[in-house]
Amino acid sequence: MDKKAVDYSLYLVTDRELLGNKDLAATVEEAIKGGTTLVQIREKNVSTLDFFELALVVKQIAGKYNVPFIINDRIDIALAIDADGVHIGQEDMPLAVARKLLGPTKIIGVSASTLEEAVKAQDGGADYLGVGAVFPTRTKSDADHVSLAALRRIKEGVSVPVVAIGGIDKDTIQRVIEAGADGAAVVSAIIASADPYQAACNLRHIIKK
Amino acid sequence: MDKKAVDYSLYLVTDRELLGNKDLAATVEEAIKGGTTLVQIREKNVSTLDFFELALVVKQIAGKYNVPFIINDRIDIALAIDADGVHIGQEDMPLAVARKLLGPTKIIGVSASTLEEAVKAQDGGADYLGVGAVFPTRTKSDADHVSLAALRRIKEGVSVPVVAIGGIDKDTIQRVIEAGADGAAVVSAIIASADPYQAACNLRHIIKK
Ligand code: NI
Repeated sequence: MDKKAVDYSLYLVTDRELLGNKDLAATVEEAIKGGTTLVQIREKNVSTLDFFELALVVKQIAGKYNVPFIINDRIDIALAIDADGVHIGQEDMPLAVARKLLGPTKIIGVSASTLEEAVKAQDGGADYLGVGAVFPTRTKSDADHVSLAALRRIKEGVSVPVVAIGGIDKDTIQRVIEAGADGAAVVSAIIASADPYQAACNLRHIIKK
Repeated sequence: MDKKAVDYSLYLVTDRELLGNKDLAATVEEAIKGGTTLVQIREKNVSTLDFFELALVVKQIAGKYNVPFIINDRIDIALAIDADGVHIGQEDMPLAVARKLLGPTKIIGVSASTLEEAVKAQDGGADYLGVGAVFPTRTKSDADHVSLAALRRIKEGVSVPVVAIGGIDKDTIQRVIEAGADGAAVVSAIIASADPYQAACNLRHIIKK
């Protein structure tokens, strides 16, 4: 993987609790077939062993389609399965420590909800920024709200790719792209969908039109 | 640290939720002054950043007294602060993966509640075994119970050090040592004590008498 060439446009974040009766691996595969360009595994209430085993399965699927695959927060899991990178929030490992552990070639994304956090992360070596929550969301109850105007100011203030996150679905995705985001991170609009392939495909068409 | 020379006899496991009004760092320091021979940080409901910062503080204290210092479960935290090792349970990272990430010089302890698990962990390269819960405990609600007779059989079936854990206090510690354990892991009997120095000192005297 050449991390400079990563396509962040349709960025899938997993959440097993939103799957309903679907299988996570099958859902990720359908989402990739539908146009997902990057997959992040984000699982909060699982044992390390379950996270590791899940990550191994999803890595295999993402690898089959050459889609970059990153891990939320857990650098130990990322190292264990040789993931393409990690995404870290403001309450996760400090960026400098994460970079030291992962080395220069891995993707490290950092959550930012203000321009100050965004610039600090970029200066610290973040490869992209996750900015949100741009819309209300059930999946991240403690997330700060970031208006679309604030998203635009952050995008204009940094040079690294900016991925918007938070409550993005087919009705709202166009607005975050118009606000300048390089990509949209989607959780429930794909994971909770009865047809993850079609959901991803619809989102992809809106982004690329 | 020479991991072959580690003294496992009075093994302190932290739990911030049992501290009451005491400070964790001060409590660990008092426990070390009282005779604690090894410290494990075990924190379950904290952010990665809080765990990292806590581990940095405790590492400094343990280092000041040349007491080995290990991390429960989180290999990323252990790598980030260059801890002396990790303790992994049956639901944590597989031992072979943990060893690959940490290298040969770090301590890796593994939880075992049966002789089969104990032998498997020893054969896989565990440096010591944590065996329990030998008595009922509030701090590990899902722990299997291991009788003192079973503890003795495990000790007789392996050559690596065996540390008993689970509900051990001044009234019970002698029984686990008599059952053959190389050490006793203590949580609330020190952490929840109003005088952690005296609590550790009393336990140490019983072990060494
Ligand atoms: Ni299509």
